[in-house]
Amino acid sequence: LTETTPSRTQASALRDLARIVGELNVRVPPPTGHLRDATESRAIHGSALASVSPASTEEVSGVVRWCVRQGLAVVPRGGGTGYAAAAVPAGEAIVVCTDRLAGAGEVTPEAWRGTFPAGMTTSEVQRRCREAGLFFAPNPGSAESCFIGGNVATNAGGPRSFRYGQTRSWVTGLVVVLGDGRPVRLGGSARKNVETLDLVGLVCGSEGTLGVITEVTLRLQPAPEAELPLLALYADREAGLDALSSAMASGVVPAALEFLDGEALCAAAGTLPGGPAPDARFAVLAEALGSEATARFEASVLNEALAHGALSVRAPQVRRDVAALWRWRDGVSLAVTALRGGKLSEDITVPTERLGEALVAIDAIGLDAGVEVTSWGHAGDGNIHATVMVDHTNAAGLIAAEGAAHRFLEVPAKLGGAVSGEHGIGRVKLRAAATQLDRDVLAIQRAVKAVFDPSGMMNPWVKIPSGREGFAAGPGLTGGDPR
Amino acid sequence: LTETTPSRTQASALRDLARIVGELNVRVPPPTGHLRDATESRAIHGSALASVSPASTEEVSGVVRWCVRQGLAVVPRGGGTGYAAAAVPAGEAIVVCTDRLAGAGEVTPEAWRGTFPAGMTTSEVQRRCREAGLFFAPNPGSAESCFIGGNVATNAGGPRSFRYGQTRSWVTGLVVVLGDGRPVRLGGSARKNVETLDLVGLVCGSEGTLGVITEVTLRLQPAPEAELPLLALYADREAGLDALSSAMASGVVPAALEFLDGEALCAAAGTLPGGPAPDARFAVLAEALGSEATARFEASVLNEALAHGALSVRAPQVRRDVAALWRWRDGVSLAVTALRGGKLSEDITVPTERLGEALVAIDAIGLDAGVEVTSWGHAGDGNIHATVMVDHTNAAGLIAAEGAAHRFLEVPAKLGGAVSGEHGIGRVKLRAAATQLDRDVLAIQRAVKAVFDPSGMMNPWVKIPSGREGFAAGPGLTGGDPR
Repeated sequence: LTETTPSRTQASALRDLARIVGELNVRVPPPTGHLRDATESRAIHGSALASVSPASTEEVSGVVRWCVRQGLAVVPRGGGTGYAAAAVPAGEAIVVCTDRLAGAGEVTPEAWRGTFPAGMTTSEVQRRCREAGLFFAPNPGSAESCFIGGNVATNAGGPRSFRYGQTRSWVTGLVVVLGDGRPVRLGGSARKNVETLDLVGLVCGSEGTLGVITEVTLRLQPAPEAELPLLALYADREAGLDALSSAMASGVVPAALEFLDGEALCAAAGTLPGGPAPDARFAVLAEALGSEATARFEASVLNEALAHGALSVRAPQVRRDVAALWRWRDGVSLAVTALRGGKLSEDITVPTERLGEALVAIDAIGLDAGVEVTSWGHAGDGNIHATVMVDHTNAAGLIAAEGAAHRFLEVPAKLGGAVSGEHGIGRVKLRAAATQLDRDVLAIQRAVKAVFDPSGMMNPWVKIPSGREGFAAGPGLTGGDPR
Repeated sequence: LTETTPSRTQASALRDLARIVGELNVRVPPPTGHLRDATESRAIHGSALASVSPASTEEVSGVVRWCVRQGLAVVPRGGGTGYAAAAVPAGEAIVVCTDRLAGAGEVTPEAWRGTFPAGMTTSEVQRRCREAGLFFAPNPGSAESCFIGGNVATNAGGPRSFRYGQTRSWVTGLVVVLGDGRPVRLGGSARKNVETLDLVGLVCGSEGTLGVITEVTLRLQPAPEAELPLLALYADREAGLDALSSAMASGVVPAALEFLDGEALCAAAGTLPGGPAPDARFAVLAEALGSEATARFEASVLNEALAHGALSVRAPQVRRDVAALWRWRDGVSLAVTALRGGKLSEDITVPTERLGEALVAIDAIGLDAGVEVTSWGHAGDGNIHATVMVDHTNAAGLIAAEGAAHRFLEVPAKLGGAVSGEHGIGRVKLRAAATQLDRDVLAIQRAVKAVFDPSGMMNPWVKIPSGREGFAAGPGLTGGDPR
């Protein structure tokens, strides 16, 4: 026996995987694009033996079985837009891309239902729903690039989660390839189903640790006639927080209730819809959504609530202006990244009434660490994108930034929140999960994972701390600190 | 020893349990009321060694630990309103009543949140929310008697689940005593939380098989200003189904979209709000809910949709009449029971577009079995209370009825639905679950239960088929057929 050289391993992987998915759909070594996600902006990237693109549940099953036999980790990959490095591989891993789990899906308008392949982008799902007069509410900022399978795997949120809940609330059925390669169908087309434990919900938000999602069935709603966002600008945080309280007490349930602090607002000032607002140091974005009559009524109530103490309230009325406002909001993350070339962005969640306290604590951490911080996010849900701006060519600065970002995760621990509201734990928050979460809860989660993934090959080192010494980092990533 | 003297087992149970919860809170033998739930109307009742009422999470923990040591099954009990016999004990069991898990709870109006003890009735939760200007949407018909802990344990639904989802959609945190007696806190006050696998969701709908729920944290919404139900009456099923399709296509999302067939309508005819409707053989009940302006607008759209082909549409406007209509709807189940003294009621779910096919199939089963059947339920969710009326003093009739009810459970299998949409599997649908569900899914569910309940003492014989020979019935119940 000769010692297996990397090239022989690669060659045999290429040959075996090509038999399952076809030669064109195996990349050895994987393109760098398959080794990164949105944590690239904090300079994290990984490594893998190969990436493959199976085109069916059966092919996914074949790939997973092969990986388990070879003792290779399976790293499922959607659109690669995650902020937690859950799809960033490391070590002896195979990246399972879901981009070829494609096809038209099927929409049943009369029953408000749709079934889609995991590899369809969220914006394409939304478009197909709209064509049928229907509406898929969750709207993560990355909808143009992220996949519906990834939305389910992360239980993605976005602004409209405030009224509509996260992705999980809309999923009735899944096809999943388990960690031993068996495909199973969980749930189905029924809108209500309590015939088993909620295994559908368990897979939602599991970040690829329980299996590979190949198909998703969603319950939907009729498309709203009108979407009326309001952008209210304030001279300081206190005025903005007061207005948020007024909006919460207005009796209306906005589809979204967002905020931006002064730095985020400055970062995105160049494209602010309606022109510059030099005095504004806090913004609230609310959305009224529904029938024309309902949306107009609710927008007027929200406008009244938000106007109190505001510098101005901007209320776009025509479709083009409405779209421009949301494009601007979706671009905030990129605008903040552009300031220094990189950022470390968390998504801590606190009880909604403690939003103000959390923002003060985040600013204090930044001041203490000598780094520039900013926060924006989903105010109504208490979900804060606490962010450190970094120049990732500056190694010392990056270390200080990672330190500050790590301390952000102590804020929810103090205020009774969660270290992640929608991005997930992935690899970057694994240490925080290991140290902050209850030991019994961590032990339950590990045991539940083992039920779905007996060999432990499904996205190891992600989401679920191993329990050994509280935290085991797994093979290293390049750059950043995979906390 | 006289017959009324407790046996040695009973005496030692009484002594040990009294040490944990106090002598007044142990009943040996349990009162008959603790051995039954709403399946009493199909003549099912059970047996147990004792019932206890712990007053805190710690006391629950003590009781569960004691039960595990003694090898006695733990049967958690809420308000005892279940239709699946999930709280009906059998054999060597201790009933753990949650009625003394009481107290005021805590509502945080500015954050739209409430925390309540498991033993609070759902109507009391709803009342406390309303007092704070808030709204807990799920409204099972038994709200006056059922407990919020039981709602979570069954993932209860009700009419408003159509717009608002089931109980699970509103639960952010739980305190649960696991099968080994350890209390754990799952989730918390944050409205969004993906820091672990969705263990909160897993406990929702677990029917007491994973642990005893002692405290529930709910996200809430502002109370709607107006609730405007509409009752539309039709000469036949076809006209009613057409109207349901029109309502689904109207662009409005009703809070509820219910139906009653001719027999259910007849059973409840005596109290029909607005007076008798002798020609009506199908009814649709829709609800517009929201701000005054929104509810009026949506009620007018729904009225137009439902009026097409209707004999009449009744639209109560004042609070008293609105309440009377819902009281009537909540009373349908009792009215049907009253017809012959008993009923066997299922809650199968089919994809919404197949509701008509399902109703035809249910009627055919009744005709074939020579029993009287009727259906009503949550049309928008395809959730059908398929029911056989029985005189349970007639043994032969009861057997025929059980046979027909069992065949109802084949309808969702044929049409792609679920054997239970909201009542749960309990004991009465365990055989159907064992035979109809996928073997891999059943195996996963058993293994997940074992993680929470290693000794298997938490409500055995309920919800989760054992896997031995497909189905193991466990100790028998008295009366009925614990399928």
